Amino acid sequence: MKVTELVRDQLELFLQQGNLEGAKALLVPVQPVDIAEAIEGLDESIQALAFRLLPKTEAIEVYEHLDSTIQQNLIQKFKRQEVLDIVDQMSPDDRARLFDELPAKVIRRLLSQLSEKERQSTALLLGYEEDTAGRIMTPEYISLKEHLTSVQALDRIRSLANASELIYYLYVTDNSRHLAGIVSLRDLVIAAPDKTLGEIMTRDVVYVHTSTDQEEVAQLIQRYDLLALPVVDREQRLVGVVTVDDVLDIIEQETTEDIYALGGVQATNDNYFQISLLAVARKRVVWLLILLGTNTITSEIIRSQSSLLQQVVALAAFIPLLTGTGGNVGAQSSTVVIRGLNTNTIRELGPAKVVLREGLAGLLLGTLLGAIAIVYFSWQEELAVSLAVGISLVAISVLASVSGSALPFLFRSLGLDPALMSAPFITTAVDVAGVLIYFNVARLILGL
Amino acid sequence: MKVTELVRDQLELFLQQGNLEGAKALLVPVQPVDIAEAIEGLDESIQALAFRLLPKTEAIEVYEHLDSTIQQNLIQKFKRQEVLDIVDQMSPDDRARLFDELPAKVIRRLLSQLSEKERQSTALLLGYEEDTAGRIMTPEYISLKEHLTSVQALDRIRSLANASELIYYLYVTDNSRHLAGIVSLRDLVIAAPDKTLGEIMTRDVVYVHTSTDQEEVAQLIQRYDLLALPVVDREQRLVGVVTVDDVLDIIEQETTEDIYALGGVQATNDNYFQISLLAVARKRVVWLLILLGTNTITSEIIRSQSSLLQQVVALAAFIPLLTGTGGNVGAQSSTVVIRGLNTNTIRELGPAKVVLREGLAGLLLGTLLGAIAIVYFSWQEELAVSLAVGISLVAISVLASVSGSALPFLFRSLGLDPALMSAPFITTAVDVAGVLIYFNVARLILGL
Repeated sequence: MKVTELVRDQLELFLQQGNLEGAKALLVPVQPVDIAEAIEGLDESIQALAFRLLPKTEAIEVYEHLDSTIQQNLIQKFKRQEVLDIVDQMSPDDRARLFDELPAKVIRRLLSQLSEKERQSTALLLGYEEDTAGRIMTPEYISLKEHLTSVQALDRIRSLANASELIYYLYVTDNSRHLAGIVSLRDLVIAAPDKTLGEIMTRDVVYVHTSTDQEEVAQLIQRYDLLALPVVDREQRLVGVVTVDDVLDIIEQETTEDIYALGGVQATNDNYFQISLLAVARKRVVWLLILLGTNTITSEIIRSQSSLLQQVVALAAFIPLLTGTGGNVGAQSSTVVIRGLNTNTIRELGPAKVVLREGLAGLLLGTLLGAIAIVYFSWQEELAVSLAVGISLVAISVLASVSGSALPFLFRSLGLDPALMSAPFITTAVDVAGVLIYFNVARLILGL
Repeated sequence: MKVTELVRDQLELFLQQGNLEGAKALLVPVQPVDIAEAIEGLDESIQALAFRLLPKTEAIEVYEHLDSTIQQNLIQKFKRQEVLDIVDQMSPDDRARLFDELPAKVIRRLLSQLSEKERQSTALLLGYEEDTAGRIMTPEYISLKEHLTSVQALDRIRSLANASELIYYLYVTDNSRHLAGIVSLRDLVIAAPDKTLGEIMTRDVVYVHTSTDQEEVAQLIQRYDLLALPVVDREQRLVGVVTVDDVLDIIEQETTEDIYALGGVQATNDNYFQISLLAVARKRVVWLLILLGTNTITSEIIRSQSSLLQQVVALAAFIPLLTGTGGNVGAQSSTVVIRGLNTNTIRELGPAKVVLREGLAGLLLGTLLGAIAIVYFSWQEELAVSLAVGISLVAISVLASVSGSALPFLFRSLGLDPALMSAPFITTAVDVAGVLIYFNVARLILGL
């Protein structure tokens, strides 16, 4: 991070002094993504000025790396021709992502001014559902016919390489654009000059459809160690490819969604730290209301036991300890199970064995915690109360780890997202059952 | 998943019938990673048999995809020559990973039997710390001198391509193996035949040291959209490269660590679902003991208020609701802040603004929840008790979101992992403060 901050400060200084040549020279050895970060750190009033220092080809790359809010700000400050230069040369998938966030009126105007070919590829991508392979693919790949020899293919690549985002895989298609096979640039370079693509291509191709979810695309690329994955339409015709660098961004976005779900926050396509306070509250309030409802049930249960509490007021002191420990044990179980389902590392055991194992772990941990509690609290309280606390701790730990591990499986088998059964929910649900257990154990031991 | 299950069942059937030719034919069109998964699903007694059906070159790839426990089982069943064939041809980084888990005696024996070149590259990798670039890099890259022309370079690639894992980047080094620049295969293919590598190479190379943490390696590859990243030693000499497909695995592993930390489970290099029950308990007990300690403080506070509770026993009923809600609000704040720190999406706002924003969000959410609680509970309880609950909810929500967002920053500035201030800890810490607030508010309102 230090480097981009240095660049930003120096750039700011040059711009304030009006030393544009100095600023230009400063940026020459810096990578586009770092320039983008430096520009993001500048005051809004000079961002456009800094951006104009860049040579045209680099400007586009820097622009693609900027945050979407800054992209939108800049677009409004640029002159018409500048806008077209940038938008026309962005790769179609990045352009689709930018257009996603601009007002419909602006998009229509921009689309109408793009070159015919660029307009078609962007409009094509915009027609697919969000978060699908269709939306994140690029139509800039190289497809060739199978009768070409490897020398002829290399010549074609030379002439096409500048127009294509991806040249490490060549897609071999038949006359109706159906995907027949793949040749990697590696295989092509190694192959004898007179071999045809048909002879060297791999026919067992891993591919996805335009409607495939982007998370599945990411998993396939990871599973098969690919640099890119071809995308076909309903008639199995090749329409684009998804590249591994886009997959890294998808994985980061999907991971954030998973982690937010585990923390009881609704996922968002925007950066949480750039949305308004009201939007923040909206993302959090639904879960809090559900949990308030569940917590109210816990309160009702305790209120129904007020005669017991009146007689042994000491019992009240241990309620947060019991519900808290149950929540923590349950949170651990649901966290490992939800992550196991997402990464598919759980598959060998199967639900029954996992729940049994978690139950046993809960018994082990609960017994340890319960024993500590009995020894510690019996110094200060009646033995009966300490016993009630310790025994309840064991029962609650077992219950928490069983429900924390079983509920994600149940939700998944119902076709719902297992992450809905995450820590906040398990914690609160275990509260209800926990106080019930506690009061019944206490009544039994105290003989009330 | 369906495909690998079909393959597994069919394979099992063929093997039981002794139909080895059928089994071989079945596996021909299947991808190595899928074969590995099918073999993992077979009974242990026939795994080695199934593995022996594979042609030699494919066997190695399948072996690299197997789970490490199954790799170790198989190694013990193979004959000496089989073992050598596999181990000798594995890529050095995968071999280092396997050796990591075998007993030292077995490794020494295997190392001594490898070909000289393979032994050196593996021993080299084994000398680096775990989780560093040195451990995950492959020494199988292509390095060339800068006076070569592009045609000469392509010829060299043809002769080296089979021995090298990565051929899409060529590394240009000087006579003492210092990294001078990079040429992508793409640039090479496009370049005029008589240009030298020195003329077409990029000199601003992003690289890491052997001791760089693997998480930083992953971030750099993601940031600069690279297919591979060169690794240099202390004297800046090129010693290996890390490829993007290994990075995807690292990201998955690091994400699991982050998510486990958020759920209060210690991270593990092994699969959680394959370790013993005692190991599971060990990974969870530390956090539970810390939290039990904190919870005990909550109990002490409540016990110190037993005279108040004796007078107004209804107060006890709302303790779980208050601590539960505080925990949930705090979990939300700490989740978004910890994820923001990990993905660097928080950087533009800075700690002060983030904490202020979260505090305001807590005020907004707390006011809403408090108002609902006052209206609902005043039906059933004295107004004074309902007011105490509602007002405490507001104060606890603000406190929870401020501490949930501030503590991760604090921990980070102390050089500790911010994930230690995750949901389970915040939840329990807020409990302590929450009951203190509640009793004080109640005393004030009830005039006791």
